[in-house]
Amino acid sequence: MADTGPDPAPAPAPKGILLKADTIAEPFLAEVKASLASGISRAPKLVGILATANAPSRSYAEFTRKQCVALGIEFELREVGSALGGGANGSRADGEGVEEAIIEANADDAVDGLMVYYPIFGKEQDHYLQQIVSPYKDVEGLNYKFHYNLYHNIRYLEPKSLLASSPSLARGPAPPKDDVPPPGTVKSILPCTPLGVVKSLERIGVYNALLPYGDRAYGRTITVINRSEVVGRPLAALLANDGARVFSVDIDSIHEYTKRPAAPAASASSSGGEGGPAAAVRRAFHPHHVVRPAPPSFDLARCLAISDVVVSAVPSAAYKVPTAALKDGCVCVNVAADKNFEADVREKASLYIPAVGKVTILMLLRNLLRLLQYQDLLKETS
Amino acid sequence: MADTGPDPAPAPAPKGILLKADTIAEPFLAEVKASLASGISRAPKLVGILATANAPSRSYAEFTRKQCVALGIEFELREVGSALGGGANGSRADGEGVEEAIIEANADDAVDGLMVYYPIFGKEQDHYLQQIVSPYKDVEGLNYKFHYNLYHNIRYLEPKSLLASSPSLARGPAPPKDDVPPPGTVKSILPCTPLGVVKSLERIGVYNALLPYGDRAYGRTITVINRSEVVGRPLAALLANDGARVFSVDIDSIHEYTKRPAAPAASASSSGGEGGPAAAVRRAFHPHHVVRPAPPSFDLARCLAISDVVVSAVPSAAYKVPTAALKDGCVCVNVAADKNFEADVREKASLYIPAVGKVTILMLLRNLLRLLQYQDLLKETS
Repeated sequence: MADTGPDPAPAPAPKGILLKADTIAEPFLAEVKASLASGISRAPKLVGILATANAPSRSYAEFTRKQCVALGIEFELREVGSALGGGANGSRADGEGVEEAIIEANADDAVDGLMVYYPIFGKEQDHYLQQIVSPYKDVEGLNYKFHYNLYHNIRYLEPKSLLASSPSLARGPAPPKDDVPPPGTVKSILPCTPLGVVKSLERIGVYNALLPYGDRAYGRTITVINRSEVVGRPLAALLANDGARVFSVDIDSIHEYTKRPAAPAASASSSGGEGGPAAAVRRAFHPHHVVRPAPPSFDLARCLAISDVVVSAVPSAAYKVPTAALKDGCVCVNVAADKNFEADVREKASLYIPAVGKVTILMLLRNLLRLLQYQDLLKETS
Repeated sequence: MADTGPDPAPAPAPKGILLKADTIAEPFLAEVKASLASGISRAPKLVGILATANAPSRSYAEFTRKQCVALGIEFELREVGSALGGGANGSRADGEGVEEAIIEANADDAVDGLMVYYPIFGKEQDHYLQQIVSPYKDVEGLNYKFHYNLYHNIRYLEPKSLLASSPSLARGPAPPKDDVPPPGTVKSILPCTPLGVVKSLERIGVYNALLPYGDRAYGRTITVINRSEVVGRPLAALLANDGARVFSVDIDSIHEYTKRPAAPAASASSSGGEGGPAAAVRRAFHPHHVVRPAPPSFDLARCLAISDVVVSAVPSAAYKVPTAALKDGCVCVNVAADKNFEADVREKASLYIPAVGKVTILMLLRNLLRLLQYQDLLKETS
């Protein structure tokens, strides 16, 4: 250490902070506990459907069970297909019977929430399955209607609107002023993984509570690596709807998600000081984010060089975000099951969150408690 | 020719027949014309949404227009995003504004049907877009509810059921005895490309009208190459629901789709003659198809060697079904934009259909006329 040696050279910079998800999850755990203790009409029951012999899926299922048991939530794992084991003849296929299991749980009044462990068949067919889950039991928030609301920055919904076959035909309402749902509405359900990331970023100061509600990530530049429909795209949209400038990086393209109008191209640098007209334009914003291709000169390195936050969700053990390309003092969040950051990430990052699963599961349970309430509201009004 | 030479050798076998889609399409064209002349309440309007500068999409849009104009159906092409051309600054991205265009057309009472030219963003995000189209205007039949009905062999629906957010929770009804919808129901909408293939196979004798309705492909073995959610999987399911044994071949796996229970594995070859117990089991069938992995020894060549019909829908100019592997006298259908069969396919195939686009478009217009009727029925009952 610096104080043991005779050399007057500056002390070596300390590494960035490693933030475990447990710490971040604490207030959400307390919130779920409080809701369970007082705010709900009955003890909820969550059903998980495991349809493959895929080891990470099974361990996620066991993790769900553990969390539920710890909180006094009933959890039942229903195994179908190759999850049951094929035995010597190995006759049960991945996903065999999963659709029937979903339909049964949809119709079962004793089941309050329902989650399915993906991947099963592959992205396309899994997307079909996700639509089969009743939106009233969709604790993962994967129904296209919840995605529609997310993309359109529609934060509240009437419980009965979930009965409709199409998203509301009206354009979205004006952006909300605070997070209190207007009378007759409840909060929309958000997909739990992207929500877990957003909540983690809120907790660690990336969101600024001094800014107006709905724009608290304004001023932040965030790179999200991966643009899947389940994680990357909804996450980029959520962050942009909250005011951030987001680079959404996928294998073949980089898109920019932002609520702000594009800066006037030619005059951006010559439009005067902070209070000039260009700045005023930048402070105005669309009711929800728009997506543009990133400028042609923006490759991943250039995005990383200006990003305050880097979130990576690439499902590959081989993929690594190069530490050398990170902005000094940035925040790094690994969402993938594999480590997408190099071992030395904290040489550059000020904060590093290696996993968000414990936050995600609490978001899922929070969704469960909300859906329970929405089911009750629907029964009252019908 | 054989009769001009002195050689007594057998005559060279004639090539298989090349069947153009025009010929196959004739009765469907007549059906659509008849419906337009008498069976509908008003002149329909179809809107196409073109959101990319992709040349095949534009030419499909022009083809749609031509077909509509020829039949007196109003067609309006709405161009957004890069379809508008970027000009020198090229600032409009693929798909920019497409969601807004869909929502607008959903809400517009003057629009009876709505189709979107894919691909736009890629499979996952395009699948999301497909769910945004109102099921009442979904002439392509891509809403997950129509797919759900197809997979579950549910052939009829109550028009108001399209208003619901989830598919019917009840198990599917008993398989229908004929193609007359029970009172209060109408035919479900089928995705137009798979339906175009099925109708083509009906027309050319692959389906046998002597067999009971709903099982007219019984006895046929069919290989479908490609298992996308838009073409290959629904097509395999439709054919299996109609009684065929289908091998669904994709890049990494081969599945078997069938309504028939699996033959008792060990005793299959020793279970006696045609009237034996195994045969009786084979003649019974599930109310809808089941999917199993093909036996491990089944590779593409083995599937082709026993297939009466081979349908290929691989979006690649490089992919070719090897003529040498085909069963002599089989029927080959190319659904891809590229030619998936080798130039000498008719040396083996008895019938070869090089393209089904002209049948597909008529299925789409038939869907348009049906949806018009369903919209009217819904208005009457509400």
